[in-house]
Amino acid sequence: MTRYALTLEYDGSAFFGLQRQADGPSVQQAVEEAAHAITGEDIRMHAAGRTDTGVHAVAMRAHIEVAKDIAPFRLMEGMNAKLRPDPVAVTAIEEVDKDWHARFSCTGRRYLYRIVNRRAPLTLMKDRAWQVPQDLDPKAMHRAAQHLVGLHDFTTFRSAHCQAASPVKTLDRLDVESVEGPWGPEIAIHAAARSFLHHQVRSMVGCLALVGMGRWSEQDMADALEAKSRAALGFNAPPQGLYFMEAIYPD
Amino acid sequence: MTRYALTLEYDGSAFFGLQRQADGPSVQQAVEEAAHAITGEDIRMHAAGRTDTGVHAVAMRAHIEVAKDIAPFRLMEGMNAKLRPDPVAVTAIEEVDKDWHARFSCTGRRYLYRIVNRRAPLTLMKDRAWQVPQDLDPKAMHRAAQHLVGLHDFTTFRSAHCQAASPVKTLDRLDVESVEGPWGPEIAIHAAARSFLHHQVRSMVGCLALVGMGRWSEQDMADALEAKSRAALGFNAPPQGLYFMEAIYPD
Repeated sequence: MTRYALTLEYDGSAFFGLQRQADGPSVQQAVEEAAHAITGEDIRMHAAGRTDTGVHAVAMRAHIEVAKDIAPFRLMEGMNAKLRPDPVAVTAIEEVDKDWHARFSCTGRRYLYRIVNRRAPLTLMKDRAWQVPQDLDPKAMHRAAQHLVGLHDFTTFRSAHCQAASPVKTLDRLDVESVEGPWGPEIAIHAAARSFLHHQVRSMVGCLALVGMGRWSEQDMADALEAKSRAALGFNAPPQGLYFMEAIYPD
Repeated sequence: MTRYALTLEYDGSAFFGLQRQADGPSVQQAVEEAAHAITGEDIRMHAAGRTDTGVHAVAMRAHIEVAKDIAPFRLMEGMNAKLRPDPVAVTAIEEVDKDWHARFSCTGRRYLYRIVNRRAPLTLMKDRAWQVPQDLDPKAMHRAAQHLVGLHDFTTFRSAHCQAASPVKTLDRLDVESVEGPWGPEIAIHAAARSFLHHQVRSMVGCLALVGMGRWSEQDMADALEAKSRAALGFNAPPQGLYFMEAIYPD
């Protein structure tokens, strides 16, 4: 058996999330079926993270094991041919050691959240960003975000369905940046941590948007964190603005 | 009657081009029907340019005339509500003089052509760029492009269906730029002129791609222009990489 690390890019609006589901197409199912079509083997994919319905990936990492003797490049090209026309692609492939695990070896995850701040509905960015019609103040959002950076109990920003053993996590980075996009003012929110709780990024972004609209103060954000309660949550930002950008591994 | 200048953004993959067609949905039909729904009037839209099936616009300009007394902002908001879920939006509206014409007053047009230079099929950029798997050399493409800048007979780069009176045009700018996108190396081609012939940008980009692949030399590009013949054309780049970016008006 040879273990391959895959880099996956996908449009989350076409899938019921990354993980295999009984009720609809998933990224995992698409990738496993493509690998099966090339190798004839029952392939199980393991990914660095789970993404919900509508959440995108620019560079999700995953691994599969294959018995068949096949050059990595041919495996990747064959899988991409089989994946068409599903909007998921293998953008890189690499042979890795047996002890390399896409999820358990991963020491850092990075997400991007994109907001297009304008009144007009999205066209070219439809399903690719969150459209917020109210004027947002990215500087106030960035200041409020800094209250969340560091080691905290993130219970407030955790889904009721979160399966993590502990709500205590270290958030390494939460930067709010103003970007002038071709389709108007865009706000890019960069989040990085060793790992995240379920819905953590979308929950943090939802509260940051309240700060951006002036409905929450910086202190409200600090208080929400301190409350350690889902009841203190403003709201979850929608999935279509969220992109899994990078999984980091030692070496 | 009040004349309004509109700025339109649209995803061209959902339309059979900008202009009204008997055989499928067009941007013009969508906008005219939305304006009719708000005003109850038969509205005719005039646009700065025509875009083919699959070609996008970030800021197409157009005008309509309305008899009903309605605030511009309300007209825009109402039209955007009626346009949903079609991927076309009015991003700006402005009252203009009766002698302002979206097409005839326009003194400059600017296009962007996006190439994603990689082997893997596109997912997030599907229908938004041209995927070229062969390695392209953007510097060679830029040098070749400079042969086309200036006043020339562009017959080589003109569609058989072009209705322009003359193939002689002044190309103000054709810049090839290398951009590191999140989905791999991207090549951005910027074209600007007072006006373009039908298929001119896509024809020029198709030939530039041949230069980028090393199949054409810089001199081949100069010779193709000099030939003043469609037979000398390499090929047309596909529509999905093309974006109408700006229409320029005096003042």
